[in-house]
Amino acid sequence: MTPRLALVPGEPAGIGPELCIHLVQQPREDCRLLAFADPQVLRAAADALGLPLTLLPEDAPATAPGDLPLRPLHNPAPTRFGQPDPRNARMVIDALLGAGRACLDGELDGVVTGPVHKAAINAGGIAYSGTTELLAGQAGVEVVMMLANGHMRVALATTHLPLREVADALSADSLRQVIATTHAALARDFGLPRPRIAVLGLNPHAGEDGHLGREELDVVIPLLERLRGEGLDLVGPLPADTAFLPAKLRGFDAVLAMYHDQGLPVLKYSGFEQAVNITLGLPYPRVAVDHGTALDLAGTGTADPSSLRAAATLCARLAAHRKIRP
Amino acid sequence: MTPRLALVPGEPAGIGPELCIHLVQQPREDCRLLAFADPQVLRAAADALGLPLTLLPEDAPATAPGDLPLRPLHNPAPTRFGQPDPRNARMVIDALLGAGRACLDGELDGVVTGPVHKAAINAGGIAYSGTTELLAGQAGVEVVMMLANGHMRVALATTHLPLREVADALSADSLRQVIATTHAALARDFGLPRPRIAVLGLNPHAGEDGHLGREELDVVIPLLERLRGEGLDLVGPLPADTAFLPAKLRGFDAVLAMYHDQGLPVLKYSGFEQAVNITLGLPYPRVAVDHGTALDLAGTGTADPSSLRAAATLCARLAAHRKIRP
Repeated sequence: MTPRLALVPGEPAGIGPELCIHLVQQPREDCRLLAFADPQVLRAAADALGLPLTLLPEDAPATAPGDLPLRPLHNPAPTRFGQPDPRNARMVIDALLGAGRACLDGELDGVVTGPVHKAAINAGGIAYSGTTELLAGQAGVEVVMMLANGHMRVALATTHLPLREVADALSADSLRQVIATTHAALARDFGLPRPRIAVLGLNPHAGEDGHLGREELDVVIPLLERLRGEGLDLVGPLPADTAFLPAKLRGFDAVLAMYHDQGLPVLKYSGFEQAVNITLGLPYPRVAVDHGTALDLAGTGTADPSSLRAAATLCARLAAHRKIRP
Repeated sequence: MTPRLALVPGEPAGIGPELCIHLVQQPREDCRLLAFADPQVLRAAADALGLPLTLLPEDAPATAPGDLPLRPLHNPAPTRFGQPDPRNARMVIDALLGAGRACLDGELDGVVTGPVHKAAINAGGIAYSGTTELLAGQAGVEVVMMLANGHMRVALATTHLPLREVADALSADSLRQVIATTHAALARDFGLPRPRIAVLGLNPHAGEDGHLGREELDVVIPLLERLRGEGLDLVGPLPADTAFLPAKLRGFDAVLAMYHDQGLPVLKYSGFEQAVNITLGLPYPRVAVDHGTALDLAGTGTADPSSLRAAATLCARLAAHRKIRP
């Protein structure tokens, strides 16, 4: 059965709505999309692009270019390209939570999200640190952020922390949770029954036998040993600077970086446009674009829909894997 | 005048000697090389490769494949491929210091080095943390490590430190020194009179206005403002994950990463074979290979000489720039 996915544009003043318009110009067979959005915002985006848009009832099939089934929400304040209005923050959050709820209730099979403007949400009086955290909180689970493109998959053991807090944030318990979540998601959602995960060291040269830090000796190595004993295929801890060499990467299904800037510069360098952000560990697949709201581009018609397209395609594939492997 | 460069193979049991043999198979016009090495080690490497080697007096011209002027040193212990002997540690260090001294004395114009085996040196009873530090100590200067290939140049504000010590190791003073050294070297040695340097933030998203760490607000931004006032062309602090996007990179002459694993995974991914390690701030140019001793490959004839070749070519170019810009 074709998976049904929620499509949430994100910040209405950013490029998210127009990316959604681009996305629905080609009818697709891998999934059925249901937008959680304000119809006026979508229409304004379609007008700006000069592309067709036909908003449909929730259960209508999308067959022609521009067909888009919609669950409508309404922004209290008018939206203007490039100018987020904090009065619309609640609606942005409601769309995301509505999509998550529909998946938790079994009504939909996955969530595809465009970029959200963190500062605009917080300016609207809503404490928000990211959609990943929002959906994890709603579902009551621990999640892992993974970024991927056609070249590599990079999961993060810690995400948005000041660098000086990273070392103390990593414990055997937290790392075990991250590895277990990553392993389970690769096995179940990505169809990799025995995924091989490369785990990076925290310190340069993976600590070089304790000369450059002891976390590898004290925490990482004993944990990996234990998890290998439980049957996980884990490589490492590896020095981060050489773990991504293309010849090595080919041997790994994913790389687990210990922190944000250890893993993401190389991932984005290797292919930014097609990169997507996957939330592992939710009861449903969720895939987001790996770029921001690009307020300066909103409404100009120049935004590149590659990442949203890659997100929808991957989310459909992950959802299909779940449906055939209950 | 053609620059004269010291060629130091590094660990005699590693791949350094055979890379040197590869290097001298083609007579070169951009520099004259003088090896600081044990003649027996070089001959054994040439034999293993089946390549010609003619060791020449110091001032003889190299005109045929395999010609190599030599300043001989002698290992006290026999060397075997793949098995470093701590008794030879002193000779490895003496070769490096001899090359550095020859440059400090104005006898030679630069130093090209192969890979050194840190543990073997330390096992030999010599405290050694790296050739960069060794040569900086000999010259009595502060230096900056920069890695480069055909795609990017990445300088490091801190190098071989446990991750938890990085944030405290960065101060306005240390960062000012690093930027000044990098700027001066790019201008003088690389022939970039007004280099544009991209400075990365310490924290993810460059601290995101203080939400993810305060070092950018408290230290980096005020320092960059001050240095811009002194005429330096500095961009940043930039989020590390997007600073390396190819379209952005083209606008920078170098990227200054705050720490090892923020800058080197992407550099090595983008082109490992041709990557070299440049010491900025010495009274002479020094360029090293960007790989290790590869003990498992030593003597097999399979080691790739691309990095040493790139190191010699770059060192010759940097030395030529110095000679024409006194």
